[in-house]
Amino acid sequence: MQTTADKSVPRRDARDKVTGRARYTVDLHVPGMVDGWVLRSPHAHARLVSIDAAEAERVPGVLCVLTRDDVRDIDPHFGQAIKDQPLIALDRVRFAGEPVAAVAAESATAAREAMARIRVEYEPLRAAMTLDEALAGGAPVLHESVGLSALSPDLRDIKPDFPRNIANRFTYQRGDVARAFAEADHVFDHTFTLPIVHHFFLEPFAAIAHFEGGDLTVWSGTQTPFAQQQMLAEMFRLPLSRVRIVVPYVGGGFGGRELMPPVPLAAALSRKARRPVRIVYSSEETCRTIARHAARIRIRTAVRRDGTLLGRDAQILMQTGAYADQGPRVIKKGGYRVVGPYRVPHVKVESCAVYTNTVSAGAYRGFSTPQVGWAYESQMDIIARTLGLDPVEFRLQNMLKRGDEYAPGDRPVDSDLPDMLRRACAAIGWPPRGGSRFAVRGSPSESGTGNREPRTANPQATGLGVACVIKDGGGTRTSSTAIVRLHADASATVLMSTVEIGQGAHTVLAQVVAKELGLDVGRVAVTATDTSVTPFDQRTNASRGVAMMGQAVQAAARDAAAQVAAIAAEAFGVPPEACRLEGGALVAGDRRMTVGEAISHFFRDAGGELIGRGYSRPDAGMGTLGAVSSFWEIGIGAVRVAVDLETGAIELPHLVTVADAGWAINRDLVEGQDLGAAMMGLGPTLFEELVYEGDQPVNGSLVDYRLPLFPDLPGEFDSIILEGGGGPGPNGAKGVAEGGGLPVAPAIANAVAAATGARITALPLTPERVWRALRATPALSPQPSVVSLADPGPGQNPKGTGRSTREG
Amino acid sequence: MQTTADKSVPRRDARDKVTGRARYTVDLHVPGMVDGWVLRSPHAHARLVSIDAAEAERVPGVLCVLTRDDVRDIDPHFGQAIKDQPLIALDRVRFAGEPVAAVAAESATAAREAMARIRVEYEPLRAAMTLDEALAGGAPVLHESVGLSALSPDLRDIKPDFPRNIANRFTYQRGDVARAFAEADHVFDHTFTLPIVHHFFLEPFAAIAHFEGGDLTVWSGTQTPFAQQQMLAEMFRLPLSRVRIVVPYVGGGFGGRELMPPVPLAAALSRKARRPVRIVYSSEETCRTIARHAARIRIRTAVRRDGTLLGRDAQILMQTGAYADQGPRVIKKGGYRVVGPYRVPHVKVESCAVYTNTVSAGAYRGFSTPQVGWAYESQMDIIARTLGLDPVEFRLQNMLKRGDEYAPGDRPVDSDLPDMLRRACAAIGWPPRGGSRFAVRGSPSESGTGNREPRTANPQATGLGVACVIKDGGGTRTSSTAIVRLHADASATVLMSTVEIGQGAHTVLAQVVAKELGLDVGRVAVTATDTSVTPFDQRTNASRGVAMMGQAVQAAARDAAAQVAAIAAEAFGVPPEACRLEGGALVAGDRRMTVGEAISHFFRDAGGELIGRGYSRPDAGMGTLGAVSSFWEIGIGAVRVAVDLETGAIELPHLVTVADAGWAINRDLVEGQDLGAAMMGLGPTLFEELVYEGDQPVNGSLVDYRLPLFPDLPGEFDSIILEGGGGPGPNGAKGVAEGGGLPVAPAIANAVAAATGARITALPLTPERVWRALRATPALSPQPSVVSLADPGPGQNPKGTGRSTREG
Repeated sequence: MQTTADKSVPRRDARDKVTGRARYTVDLHVPGMVDGWVLRSPHAHARLVSIDAAEAERVPGVLCVLTRDDVRDIDPHFGQAIKDQPLIALDRVRFAGEPVAAVAAESATAAREAMARIRVEYEPLRAAMTLDEALAGGAPVLHESVGLSALSPDLRDIKPDFPRNIANRFTYQRGDVARAFAEADHVFDHTFTLPIVHHFFLEPFAAIAHFEGGDLTVWSGTQTPFAQQQMLAEMFRLPLSRVRIVVPYVGGGFGGRELMPPVPLAAALSRKARRPVRIVYSSEETCRTIARHAARIRIRTAVRRDGTLLGRDAQILMQTGAYADQGPRVIKKGGYRVVGPYRVPHVKVESCAVYTNTVSAGAYRGFSTPQVGWAYESQMDIIARTLGLDPVEFRLQNMLKRGDEYAPGDRPVDSDLPDMLRRACAAIGWPPRGGSRFAVRGSPSESGTGNREPRTANPQATGLGVACVIKDGGGTRTSSTAIVRLHADASATVLMSTVEIGQGAHTVLAQVVAKELGLDVGRVAVTATDTSVTPFDQRTNASRGVAMMGQAVQAAARDAAAQVAAIAAEAFGVPPEACRLEGGALVAGDRRMTVGEAISHFFRDAGGELIGRGYSRPDAGMGTLGAVSSFWEIGIGAVRVAVDLETGAIELPHLVTVADAGWAINRDLVEGQDLGAAMMGLGPTLFEELVYEGDQPVNGSLVDYRLPLFPDLPGEFDSIILEGGGGPGPNGAKGVAEGGGLPVAPAIANAVAAATGARITALPLTPERVWRALRATPALSPQPSVVSLADPGPGQNPKGTGRSTREG
Repeated sequence: MQTTADKSVPRRDARDKVTGRARYTVDLHVPGMVDGWVLRSPHAHARLVSIDAAEAERVPGVLCVLTRDDVRDIDPHFGQAIKDQPLIALDRVRFAGEPVAAVAAESATAAREAMARIRVEYEPLRAAMTLDEALAGGAPVLHESVGLSALSPDLRDIKPDFPRNIANRFTYQRGDVARAFAEADHVFDHTFTLPIVHHFFLEPFAAIAHFEGGDLTVWSGTQTPFAQQQMLAEMFRLPLSRVRIVVPYVGGGFGGRELMPPVPLAAALSRKARRPVRIVYSSEETCRTIARHAARIRIRTAVRRDGTLLGRDAQILMQTGAYADQGPRVIKKGGYRVVGPYRVPHVKVESCAVYTNTVSAGAYRGFSTPQVGWAYESQMDIIARTLGLDPVEFRLQNMLKRGDEYAPGDRPVDSDLPDMLRRACAAIGWPPRGGSRFAVRGSPSESGTGNREPRTANPQATGLGVACVIKDGGGTRTSSTAIVRLHADASATVLMSTVEIGQGAHTVLAQVVAKELGLDVGRVAVTATDTSVTPFDQRTNASRGVAMMGQAVQAAARDAAAQVAAIAAEAFGVPPEACRLEGGALVAGDRRMTVGEAISHFFRDAGGELIGRGYSRPDAGMGTLGAVSSFWEIGIGAVRVAVDLETGAIELPHLVTVADAGWAINRDLVEGQDLGAAMMGLGPTLFEELVYEGDQPVNGSLVDYRLPLFPDLPGEFDSIILEGGGGPGPNGAKGVAEGGGLPVAPAIANAVAAATGARITALPLTPERVWRALRATPALSPQPSVVSLADPGPGQNPKGTGRSTREG
């Protein structure tokens, strides 16, 4: 029986969002609520000599001012991996924009007046603004010592080195890298960089906290309600049951809404003010609160003459900013993932999270995979072209196949990568016709811009590029729980804590339950996330909603179904397994009983419901890194670019991504996820960079920061959705939230190189950077050259970080 | 280990309520919400010829007007037993105050203007305002035919007789009543009456409904969220999962907040207005919406010379008003309960719910037991005094003992009634000293008024009275479900749907869970009632919270405890039963593991929680009435009265009640419940009556309606709490919410008779009625006389319904 559970039903949040009825944190009103404002440090690094809020607290309309003096009775530090971040500055400030005081006031005017009257004395310290400045001998040390007691079990192997500004160092090796490099025909050694970028979700950070009588309630659009609950419970020494996190609609997450810093600030302010306090950050403030890691990635790859990959030695430096946030996990994953979807027998990796006096960096859609993918897929093209190999054939030659091991002990690869790459190539028109990578505008065979006219009358060069990226999806050590309540009229309510952050999880998980119970999906309700209601889920990240929570809701639905089947079977006098649930009724042979009749029978006509529970938990195996990956998310893409040879501007006539959803429960939503990820990938590829001048970020606003706009979209923009069935979720479902974005940057850079011969190793590919690369490229020769134009990228030596690979 | 789970911890709602922070329905704001107002019928009975709201809908600020024309596509009828009540008048109105139209408007001014412009044409019909008028030949018929399809299974035996205005007739007999009466030495035949009274909870009816996109959400302080959910699902043809009932704080229930009529009205209005609609009734409107059944109860009792009860033949007429509401169940219970806590071998009962053109009557604290207890315990005193027996000894002689059958097949009596009566007597000073039932003021031995000075300088007569009432508690066919979430820090969250209506249920049920899990009660949170969250519970009534829901939360806690114990046992390598949960840790011999460690072990360090579920359901037995009672709630009380011989005013120097809580989980709250019930019992005993003049209620407001005031409280007011352990709840707990009120009226009337010789058979015992009885009593003779002063009580013949029993 096909029900709407099998179809692309509309997203449940669509109507609310389209009509403007959706209520985000900022739209909520808690009775008695006042607003909170934050006074921020102007210095990137300074000792906080003194702070005096007495005069500010006397301003009429001001309820209180929160400073370090108000948090001495609690544990003021938090952090996702290391508890290194104080909710309000204590002895030092470590980045420009760090909260130094917060004001609860009944009006913005009063708050502004109060903030002007808070007297703060700073003693400026030398700042480390870049990777190099932080790693140099004699660099200022950001953190002296930090308690590690509250580390999650999955970070037992964390190795911070505070005197050297290292938040975590991850090393990994297999095989004999030295021998591989010694025996190789070619060694390729390149360094790739990416600057700090910000998530720029549409909804800035906001939190409402109400601390009252030993109970703390927080309303906040977080991706990690249970991590936030635990953080607050530890901070204020409360039982988990007395900390409640309510999650309203969320305006985008992308990894940036994990332990949102305004949350503990609002909680502490509410505790002092004895009122519910709302803190709403501007997008400027949000941009000074969380970011994606800037990175410098050096990859050495050993290759045989025939194109066989032999070994890889990678050094990854990621700029984690003033506080570690997810940095220690990000660099670990980056290290593990830098091998890519290829057979590489000998591997050695070192990956470091480096403290700097910049905005904290955390998770960002792909969790370091965009960074390392940028590096290794750029290098793969360089290698192929240097060796005179077709970049696609070269990749196929080395590519992992379904069932191959990514690393010893880890989950085997669960998608058909070569097939996916071939489909991408077919869609984009690979190999390029006529063998020429060059064309000027007007050549319809190569310069097509899809549905859109080219935006330039200048000469263009067009080219094709591909990239293949792989990441372990779903989180490595991850768990979910769920409750399914089966009502007497054969409808159901799902209680589970995957946050609806715009990905459509509530719609799809309702479909999973509906299918399991044989119901129309309209009969399955999903209750909004609220830790006082919906049971534990580790977090909403890593494309894990369908793959991991899907298992829990499926198990809970099966548990409820088994109970109602057992009731009917007993009434029928048949074994439970002879009784099945179909369209709201129990059926065994020619016996039939509605769910309502069965529930009524069990509860002896008194009414009732059946409660199913489901748990999903990590596999038992230990894998290479002490755990087994949940599934493999594949990001394969191909792109056709048209480069304006006068301005360096890049247009994208065609971009195609290929995703393997395992089971596409709701095809429209899978496509939306995949295209959305690719679209988001355009920003850091072409435009985005949080620019620092001295110790100050200067473009952290929606006016100054260049995000992708609709005219930037590819002329043709396709997502090819496959259903390989290899995932751990219901019917083999996998997650698809990040894959589409992973190949975008290297595929575009590869296409630019194909079109122009200019190899650029620093993101973003702004017109200026492309223009400079074109100028540095000999006569648009088809021979590629490597040009690094990393300035003013942070944390890297602006001079000559690339080296020529004209060895082929 | 004694934890706070064993103590009288403070009520969780106390702080909010004392500080005014508690938010009731009227305090809520739903974005976009408008208010709804109701136009009511001025006629008690009329045909609705036409209704025209066109002009009203054009008033600026008016969103819409709801009339019968707007409910043709839904099932507009609802009802707890019979679906006889339309949400808005259709073809007829059946009581003065029935909603005829409802206006959704942005201001009260606009609504008033609109209501004035709704044109309604009525054709008045003859009304039946009393039992006699409704039962007379040729009486107007209120309901022609009503669909019975949606009856609850427990009402399969309903026997309505619409042409005779009978909503249900219940008959019951055992033994051979005719022979018992023929063989008796004495037959006592009395008729007792009670008028309509209203619950007058502090919070008038209020509801907010939001109908949107096939989902209906209601905020309303109901006692029966799941019954309300089902009613709305049937009415609007929605799955249960798409009807959500959120229950904010509730300002008292007492049976009056079951299917609250403003709820379907608000829902239909929201559906038409396409906005959230709030309807807040004034207390005057609330008083015209629900009431307690007026009753006329004739009891014939056959007695042997030695005081042995032989048989009882009772005819109970209850005035159920315009719509049946709970009437069909109320009269059934009244019929079953009229035997009282005595061995009566031969019984015959007929009990009827009679439709009249008055406000609908439903459940009221005790569910007909106050009415029948008033009758039979008054008569027991008459019999004793007539036969020259001590009223207490006479009762003890016939009283059911623990383990005796109340009726064949039903649950045996589970409290020690004789012990309870003896304790009441001891507390009040029974037997009266000196044998004299009379005293005048100034005799300190008899006229003590406890802590308070008598309010009169007139001569007083004092006397003692007792009464013993029994009811089957908890509901006969009743079920509850619950979820207990055990968190990793050994705290817990309870999801269950017993409504906190002021009885302290959330506090006590948290204690049950805390005790089961070995936790401090402060670590156990209880989530607010919300059908989208908290699982099915039949209803919050019948003193069933602790006794019935207590079983479900206990089972859920045990389920969670068993899971965590099994995890630890497996880790320890011992059988699960060797592992116990103590103070947040699992212990087996000298092995110990915290709950957090066990959960972490099970979820392989990924975090998690364990979900326990619990079901409680009716016993399997069939009993006399097709089901077995859940437990027996006993209401035993004794009172000392002082009657002002000039004015007839009654003072209460001392009132004592005795309750058997089975297990008093929270002794303070048990006392509060018992004293609260007794205090509420004072109102209908001494003051309360909803007075009709013609077809209009004339005192239905807090100004005109006389409720008990603090000066009316007894001088000494005691509750004796026993823990007999006989109940079905945790540790033998029983419910105690209603017992304290049951003996109040007959004990006071018995004391008045003892003091003055005046036997009054009609409530309330107003000064005027007592004064008239005193005037009719020969010279304050110690010989009792029976005086009926039922006028202007509704539904009964004002002349001579009592008959003299001076046969002894």
